[in-house]
Amino acid sequence: MGVPFVKGHGTENDFVLIPDPDGRLVITDAQVRALCDRRAGIGADGVIVVRPAASGGYFMDYRNADGSLAEMCGNGARVFARYLVDLGWERAGSFPFLTRGGVRTAELGPGGDVSIDMGPVRVGPAEKAELQGEVFAGTAVDVGNPHLVCLLDDESRLAALDLTRAPAFDAESFPHGVNVEFVVPVGPDHVRMRVFERGSGETRSCGTGTVAAAAAFLRATGGSGSRVTVDVPGGTVVVTFGDQGATLTGPAVLVASGQIDQAFWIAAGQP
Amino acid sequence: MGVPFVKGHGTENDFVLIPDPDGRLVITDAQVRALCDRRAGIGADGVIVVRPAASGGYFMDYRNADGSLAEMCGNGARVFARYLVDLGWERAGSFPFLTRGGVRTAELGPGGDVSIDMGPVRVGPAEKAELQGEVFAGTAVDVGNPHLVCLLDDESRLAALDLTRAPAFDAESFPHGVNVEFVVPVGPDHVRMRVFERGSGETRSCGTGTVAAAAAFLRATGGSGSRVTVDVPGGTVVVTFGDQGATLTGPAVLVASGQIDQAFWIAAGQP
Repeated sequence: MGVPFVKGHGTENDFVLIPDPDGRLVITDAQVRALCDRRAGIGADGVIVVRPAASGGYFMDYRNADGSLAEMCGNGARVFARYLVDLGWERAGSFPFLTRGGVRTAELGPGGDVSIDMGPVRVGPAEKAELQGEVFAGTAVDVGNPHLVCLLDDESRLAALDLTRAPAFDAESFPHGVNVEFVVPVGPDHVRMRVFERGSGETRSCGTGTVAAAAAFLRATGGSGSRVTVDVPGGTVVVTFGDQGATLTGPAVLVASGQIDQAFWIAAGQP
Repeated sequence: MGVPFVKGHGTENDFVLIPDPDGRLVITDAQVRALCDRRAGIGADGVIVVRPAASGGYFMDYRNADGSLAEMCGNGARVFARYLVDLGWERAGSFPFLTRGGVRTAELGPGGDVSIDMGPVRVGPAEKAELQGEVFAGTAVDVGNPHLVCLLDDESRLAALDLTRAPAFDAESFPHGVNVEFVVPVGPDHVRMRVFERGSGETRSCGTGTVAAAAAFLRATGGSGSRVTVDVPGGTVVVTFGDQGATLTGPAVLVASGQIDQAFWIAAGQP
């Protein structure tokens, strides 16, 4: 028998979840990297250790594929919440959970989509991004992490963007880098986007990025709407805005569960 | 409960194995593609269904990530053989198994590396490959599938090759395409190689490609040696040549085991 795990994804942002009901699991950076390796391991964008929080409820201990700690991940939180309900550790409905970024709330039924509160969103000043010599007008958006949202007017232009290289931006405005979203309206309160995540490159989905895109879109169109559907390469989510900030609703899929091989786990933990 | 599986790899060529002790499993191309999807599924280069052969022993039912059937896969066969022994379906030692390419033999201990007979190897005429305008002298090698092995003399030149695009070759010599290996000697009876697989691009490892590289190396150096160590990006294997043809020896790692989620499996099977 080895360490138990579940693999799941939210709009193709994928995770290995490890239940730790006693809070005793020791996991090293090297073990996270080994698990996330897409050929020599299970393969994932990150690892979520699921453990009881001292304050009650559960703690989403999220680590990036390189082993580093992260505060929060909107797509990962949906999978985490679905897993808690499927395990029977939480009941379907609404419940709080703890992240390194503070307490969040999940809302979900016994099946179907999951909603996660994403906290306050601040739409900032005009900025610009540059890609292959072309300059795109954009807007800075803070969703706890920095975003730069560029609205385009044409779907074919969005599809043609070459995001194999990082867009350039004003380093004084974004001293810690920035996630860049390119967004096109495709219907009333409906946009399509592609995202270049700092440190990762183009991804299939970015939870905070969809919130930033929806906020910038609403600001730009001057609408009084509070709900935006966002298509990303990995699927579709819905962002709503209320008094408490943004809520991100989307799918959470559990693909497989089982045990990590004991010999693999021990070898991965060697320095 | 869902469909049981194991994920494993041989020199980072990775597979989802599905035991089918009753020979009753129906698996569709769409289910293979869903399982192999690296973000929305488990993620793998291929699926191996492990089922009893009518003639005795076990059949390695190998499918590529796109759902198509394949005759044989040297790296996959190591993982398949290791799995049979770990399950207790075969005893450690030497045993035959069936593939779409015919009967092969595995040899392995209770742990450690696995040897697979790769059948006869035919070293053919001089050929050449072209990459970014540069022409490389090479040798055609048939290992049941076609290879073109180009020997280089410098490790830095090997490392600098841009294999994001396919090498060009003589289409009359290789009407069904060809796998191209670039190989550098790094010691006595020891080479390092990179491979561009037809239909896949550059990969971490190619079992028949390591056999082709070893055969072309021995032919070119005129040595009487019968054993070549081959470093690939995903690890190291050893190729030996005897009366019965080539034998490929290398690691087989089982990473995790468990069940594929029932809802995921059913959804993947929908047309």
